[in-house]
Amino acid sequence: MTDPSALVADLTLRARTAARILATLPTKTKADALRAASEALVAAKAEILAANADDMTNATRAGLSGAMLDRLRLDPGRVRAIADGVAAVAALDDPVGATIDETTRPNGLVLRRIRVPIGVIGIIYESRPNVTADAAALAVMAGNAVILRGGSEAIASNRAIHAALVHGLAAAGIPADAVQLVPTTDRAAVGAMLTADGSGGGAAIDLIIPRGGKGLVVRVQAEARVPVLAHLDGINHVYVDASADPAMAIAIVRDAKLRRTGVCGAMETLLIDRGFSDPHGLVSTLHDAGCEMRVDADLSRLMPDLARATEADWDTEYLDAIASAALVDGVDGAIAHIAAHGSHHTDAIVADDAAVAERFLAEVDSAIVLWNASTQFADGGEFGLGAEIGIATGRLHARGPVALEGLTTYKWVGYGTGQVRG
Amino acid sequence: MTDPSALVADLTLRARTAARILATLPTKTKADALRAASEALVAAKAEILAANADDMTNATRAGLSGAMLDRLRLDPGRVRAIADGVAAVAALDDPVGATIDETTRPNGLVLRRIRVPIGVIGIIYESRPNVTADAAALAVMAGNAVILRGGSEAIASNRAIHAALVHGLAAAGIPADAVQLVPTTDRAAVGAMLTADGSGGGAAIDLIIPRGGKGLVVRVQAEARVPVLAHLDGINHVYVDASADPAMAIAIVRDAKLRRTGVCGAMETLLIDRGFSDPHGLVSTLHDAGCEMRVDADLSRLMPDLARATEADWDTEYLDAIASAALVDGVDGAIAHIAAHGSHHTDAIVADDAAVAERFLAEVDSAIVLWNASTQFADGGEFGLGAEIGIATGRLHARGPVALEGLTTYKWVGYGTGQVRG
Repeated sequence: MTDPSALVADLTLRARTAARILATLPTKTKADALRAASEALVAAKAEILAANADDMTNATRAGLSGAMLDRLRLDPGRVRAIADGVAAVAALDDPVGATIDETTRPNGLVLRRIRVPIGVIGIIYESRPNVTADAAALAVMAGNAVILRGGSEAIASNRAIHAALVHGLAAAGIPADAVQLVPTTDRAAVGAMLTADGSGGGAAIDLIIPRGGKGLVVRVQAEARVPVLAHLDGINHVYVDASADPAMAIAIVRDAKLRRTGVCGAMETLLIDRGFSDPHGLVSTLHDAGCEMRVDADLSRLMPDLARATEADWDTEYLDAIASAALVDGVDGAIAHIAAHGSHHTDAIVADDAAVAERFLAEVDSAIVLWNASTQFADGGEFGLGAEIGIATGRLHARGPVALEGLTTYKWVGYGTGQVRG
Repeated sequence: MTDPSALVADLTLRARTAARILATLPTKTKADALRAASEALVAAKAEILAANADDMTNATRAGLSGAMLDRLRLDPGRVRAIADGVAAVAALDDPVGATIDETTRPNGLVLRRIRVPIGVIGIIYESRPNVTADAAALAVMAGNAVILRGGSEAIASNRAIHAALVHGLAAAGIPADAVQLVPTTDRAAVGAMLTADGSGGGAAIDLIIPRGGKGLVVRVQAEARVPVLAHLDGINHVYVDASADPAMAIAIVRDAKLRRTGVCGAMETLLIDRGFSDPHGLVSTLHDAGCEMRVDADLSRLMPDLARATEADWDTEYLDAIASAALVDGVDGAIAHIAAHGSHHTDAIVADDAAVAERFLAEVDSAIVLWNASTQFADGGEFGLGAEIGIATGRLHARGPVALEGLTTYKWVGYGTGQVRG
């Protein structure tokens, strides 16, 4: 089967059938199956590493960058970590079947909103082969069937991981079609997934989650005809208010920018209240730690040796040891700057003044707003969700870190005794 | 301004500014403003009726059908009902600001999920002028700005209602741009709304809700580049199990089909367990009440005078006094039929056997599933939501009747004391 549309139609029909079975499986069945899949991954370590060696050889020959090769590379420890991750998902609380709320109407009709799986989820990702197992485990635990489309450079690794996963799941009685891997590297298959709304002969993909760089997310958002859960940018701000404790501000700003510069929760722009006692110290702490600073006109007068920020800097996610910085007129200035330049991901205020902080938390329109904490907490694990399948900056369904609950929806279940509207 | 893209870009930018103000307004301000808008509608009754008379004259001249003319027509009682509807929304519980859940992490970081408005909502609707007020009131009460695009045949009525609404809202201190009416009947403006993702010079419309016939919903779903909350079809089933009380089954089936045949919650297909005692009586009760019955081969043998259903009948939403009917092999047969032909709207089972009913409720994948109750309860008011802006059959964000809560999303708010990830 080489026609990508027919291929994806077949995958979606199989996934829909599996999804109907998964939707009503007891928690224990799903958890047991994930533990079996985890053990199967450990048992298949040799095959997975051999497949990964093939991918690494091809990728090296193709001239992939060192950073990309590192993302692709597996070793015994990384395979063990992948298996442990799958087992950890099995230990999470199952959201499916929970009652969100319940009401009894005057006519005696009892109405419950019950959590149910979304159905069929498509994951489109790049070079990290661990996503194959991580994403599949989360989707299955929330009762969904998943269609995985990894990067072509990782195809052998992904196939080996997928084979082990399915072997474990099937041994525990979960349909093999619960987790399918698109068996081609043809990019047209991605297009077919993005337009799988059920109108073209196959079944619908209910949700697409892209996991990868900005290029991938831009393509997915531009082409998708089905709902997408994603974040494009993390242009995150830390605003240091005049009322901030200077030592706390320095600690938070350093962590937010420099703990890891390549994560989507990293601070990109530092906003300092014109009334703050020591803007020089705050900017210096980053600069002295090796962070390239790009500053506005006001800060430039204080620190003339630093590079000047251009307009484009305020809209740039560096994902590197670079930050822009500006003086603003109090919390209003910070809110206005973030409204103009933020990406609705994660923004933080450092302040002692509770009224000021509450205004920031209420008025900054981001998925995550933090008071006196580092933006690098933007992570499902840190939020107590156990894991995350991604971070969403859209406004519907789920915002911020998305884990099991974000992979469910609800239905209304009504219990009557013969009620008619009449 | 005649370029529809530039027009919609301007509307979205104004709406976004208004939305930022609306997002943090206290409940009392919003409720007072809606009560003022309700009073303004009553005060403008003469202008609204005069405008509606113009619309009716044009529509009659254009040869609109009697049903469409009835939808368009206002009289003093209908204007009063519109005003009362706006006042009733003011009395609903405000979902904004509510804490969905809260957790304290081991590091002391307190995380709350707080309900916030979605932002900017576009409503695209057809001839009923009451939607102008209903939709605006719900959107504003949930803290959203709204852009309304009504049918061209109702443009004068909609303008008069909109003018009264804005007069009332503005008098109570709500920005006039909270409720905007697209001032042109150019259909290209609808296209510009459906693609308003913020990339084209304007701000984004966060959610589009179409209110109208299937043609409108099809167009909106096909063209939209922004999220849509809608239902396309209500191909709803009542399954009568062998264990059903026959008298209850007759009462529910009659109500589900015939109480009102033109509503999206009406039953279109009757499924009868092969083991049910009196299929003949069930079909006859509809047939004798004037409902055209289209039956499968099995029922045709019992009742040879009835029309035979074609394959297309199982996929048809009649919205009329017509129903299809089939015998099925118990609850499994019913579940399989609904999976093949249903539209994920509302399906009901009549049964005394609780185990059978629970299987139906769990396995039928519809926004609303009911046990021993009529499908005609599919309505926000009947669900205790106070009102509804529509019914959604998609799987994300909100399913079934959508009211104030469905017009909100959430943000994560974190309270720290200097936490860094380190």
